[in-house]
Amino acid sequence: MSYRVVDIIAKKRDGGGLSPDEIEFLVSSYAKGEVPDYQMSAFLMAVFFRGMADEELAVFTRAMMESGRVLDFSHLGNALVDKHSTGGVGDKVSLVLAPAVAACGAFVPMMSGRALGHTGGTLDKLESIEGYRTALSVSEVERVLRECGFVMFGQSEDMVPADKRMYALRDVTATVESVPLITASIVSKKCAEGARGLVFDVKAGGGAFMTSVDDARRLASSLVAGVRGLGRRGVAVVSDMSQPLGRLVGNWLEVEESVMVLRGAGPQDVRELVCVLGGWMLVLAGLAGDADEGASMLAASLDDGSAYDRFCRNVELQGGDVSWVEERMGRYRAEVCREFRAEHDGVVVSVDARAVGMAGVALGVGRSRVEDSVLPDVGVECVRKRGERVSTGDVVMRVWGRSEEVLDEVTDKLRSAVVVDTEDGDNVTSYDSSSIVIEVIGADKA
Amino acid sequence: MSYRVVDIIAKKRDGGGLSPDEIEFLVSSYAKGEVPDYQMSAFLMAVFFRGMADEELAVFTRAMMESGRVLDFSHLGNALVDKHSTGGVGDKVSLVLAPAVAACGAFVPMMSGRALGHTGGTLDKLESIEGYRTALSVSEVERVLRECGFVMFGQSEDMVPADKRMYALRDVTATVESVPLITASIVSKKCAEGARGLVFDVKAGGGAFMTSVDDARRLASSLVAGVRGLGRRGVAVVSDMSQPLGRLVGNWLEVEESVMVLRGAGPQDVRELVCVLGGWMLVLAGLAGDADEGASMLAASLDDGSAYDRFCRNVELQGGDVSWVEERMGRYRAEVCREFRAEHDGVVVSVDARAVGMAGVALGVGRSRVEDSVLPDVGVECVRKRGERVSTGDVVMRVWGRSEEVLDEVTDKLRSAVVVDTEDGDNVTSYDSSSIVIEVIGADKA
Repeated sequence: MSYRVVDIIAKKRDGGGLSPDEIEFLVSSYAKGEVPDYQMSAFLMAVFFRGMADEELAVFTRAMMESGRVLDFSHLGNALVDKHSTGGVGDKVSLVLAPAVAACGAFVPMMSGRALGHTGGTLDKLESIEGYRTALSVSEVERVLRECGFVMFGQSEDMVPADKRMYALRDVTATVESVPLITASIVSKKCAEGARGLVFDVKAGGGAFMTSVDDARRLASSLVAGVRGLGRRGVAVVSDMSQPLGRLVGNWLEVEESVMVLRGAGPQDVRELVCVLGGWMLVLAGLAGDADEGASMLAASLDDGSAYDRFCRNVELQGGDVSWVEERMGRYRAEVCREFRAEHDGVVVSVDARAVGMAGVALGVGRSRVEDSVLPDVGVECVRKRGERVSTGDVVMRVWGRSEEVLDEVTDKLRSAVVVDTEDGDNVTSYDSSSIVIEVIGADKA
Repeated sequence: MSYRVVDIIAKKRDGGGLSPDEIEFLVSSYAKGEVPDYQMSAFLMAVFFRGMADEELAVFTRAMMESGRVLDFSHLGNALVDKHSTGGVGDKVSLVLAPAVAACGAFVPMMSGRALGHTGGTLDKLESIEGYRTALSVSEVERVLRECGFVMFGQSEDMVPADKRMYALRDVTATVESVPLITASIVSKKCAEGARGLVFDVKAGGGAFMTSVDDARRLASSLVAGVRGLGRRGVAVVSDMSQPLGRLVGNWLEVEESVMVLRGAGPQDVRELVCVLGGWMLVLAGLAGDADEGASMLAASLDDGSAYDRFCRNVELQGGDVSWVEERMGRYRAEVCREFRAEHDGVVVSVDARAVGMAGVALGVGRSRVEDSVLPDVGVECVRKRGERVSTGDVVMRVWGRSEEVLDEVTDKLRSAVVVDTEDGDNVTSYDSSSIVIEVIGADKA
């Protein structure tokens, strides 16, 4: 079938429904470079205003997925599951979740991204481990997945080319903030890696892409519908990202905190989120009867050492050295350190996740441009978090950087990121700090 | 001032008002090739949905005008006026209007376009006169304008480059049908040619760009506001384009009909529209007290030979030969002719302007692509028009083409273009056929 692209744009612009043939023509032609960016950006802006019906979105997402190589691990069985997070500050969940879920019997082919903007990237964190390789061939991906139950890898050049090109275009044409376009981008990538069930961690709050809970809920629903539209199973968890997740933010720093959680210790919020997300992954994999059972299995894998064991096998399989990791626990830090102290007694009412994330970019944790490189040993420790009491002079935050100059640059931002209230925290107006999970979407049909 | 284009797109997308600096930055950077088409097309689609406030439109239009060379004929006085038509089938008004208005004492620097789609182009019609040149240098434009009171020329490469680039882009990104974008494109071009007062002929009906009278009225109001936003004077006439204007459609054919009107004869609808439009041009030029007085002056110039005299001087000045023109009156026709006859007695209730226009493209009157060339001697004669009685066997339409094949191609389309009703025309539901002028917009402050 051949169409005039301008007619497809006009139809979407005027609110008409596109046929599967029209959508497939547009996406496949774009992936082949036969549709110029200036037509696609007009189409994307029309989608921003008009949205997409569920049937359109399913065809659009599938066409993006099929624009490149699609991995198939079905010979390993049906327990192929993965998690996708919309990104946050201090979000090291993948590093714990993948080995823990694998320890419970599922396979996790986890294709991840790099840091961009104020949010971190799983691949950057893992590569702070000397020798750890994430650029794997398809046969390497398959071998690591088979041998340790999970694999951590970057998207190869020949996967979802339509999404790759479209994502870069959306970034410069103000068409990022569209729920169907975000959905198609995420779901096409995740389904191309071969997972049969997907759990989404949709973060809400200042450190997240979606700052409001309502927007996060809307995206969560769309993601679940999107993945089901492709015949896979899906659940979404809306979680709090108003303060950083855990206490450590940085590349190596987050590996370190992940190892703590994998050994049954570490911060409670990370452990809780891992258990909830992992519990649902086990449900989707058919390995747990319900989410509570799954969460208990997950917790046991953290406490009995089986999750950490998987992690260690993976580090060795992907080129790292576990003793190198263990030797650096608590010690691998950039040279210049600065501490921030409470100026009065009180309760921490907020730790601004976005401010910490932006400071991280300045320190070298993340990137402001795709071509920037990152540093392993810099970052922030949130010594005190929301709801915790402090006395005058207590350290509330610690930061490591490569020079005094860069620390000068982030000091004001970080100092004001932690707010201590002398009124005993009566006006803690943020999300309920008792649980990091705000809501689960799609649980009924999971 | 420097901005990130993506921020400007996002602001418009979210319904915010753009500052003059932002608009000027966007347009001037685009004209210089510093903003890629894919960003501009996203911006244009956002404008399609969000529109533009009057102040935004004025800055946008001025920035487009000032992106290139702006002509200045103010040394010839203030009576510098022009007309712009949104385009129709058989619309030869410019060929009559410019010499007639010049004969009444105004100067008309008429920058015109070429045929595209089903509508004709003034430059193509004039170039059917052997030797007639429309690609004039600025000094030639000035000289012809000074010597005969009007000049017919094509836009030079260095004029309104922002519009030129944007217009081509809109055509392939489904962003043509936006009232503010149409307004900015027309007004920036017309003001760049140096006119101080502009009369717009906004056509409504099947043969026009705006098929509904309401849409035409909306565009007319926007054009008047747009030209006034640039500190010039403006009036818009909404006129009927449900049937072709006049009886002849073609390049040379329309020159011929124009000459008839210039000699005080020719079809009544062409003469009426010329007098109304020209009357307003004389008002804007300060040469007539009101539109009626102006129209009377115009009619006199057609009847006393002064308008035709201007036309003849212009033909000679721009490289043509009046005797060449006069020798071909009624004779310069492509070889193959076909006639359509009434199959029963009755009244013509409609002549489908769009169908005639599309047949014209097939015959070679117009272009389906910018790079196509046109033929001088082909076209259609609407022997009978709406409201006229016919008897069985009367010729209702005549068509000239270069081959039997091309006539075969258009025959069905043209045969069904003329509808004859045996019921004495009781159901003539189109616009009142007594006047071609539907409404005048902006007359109060003209």
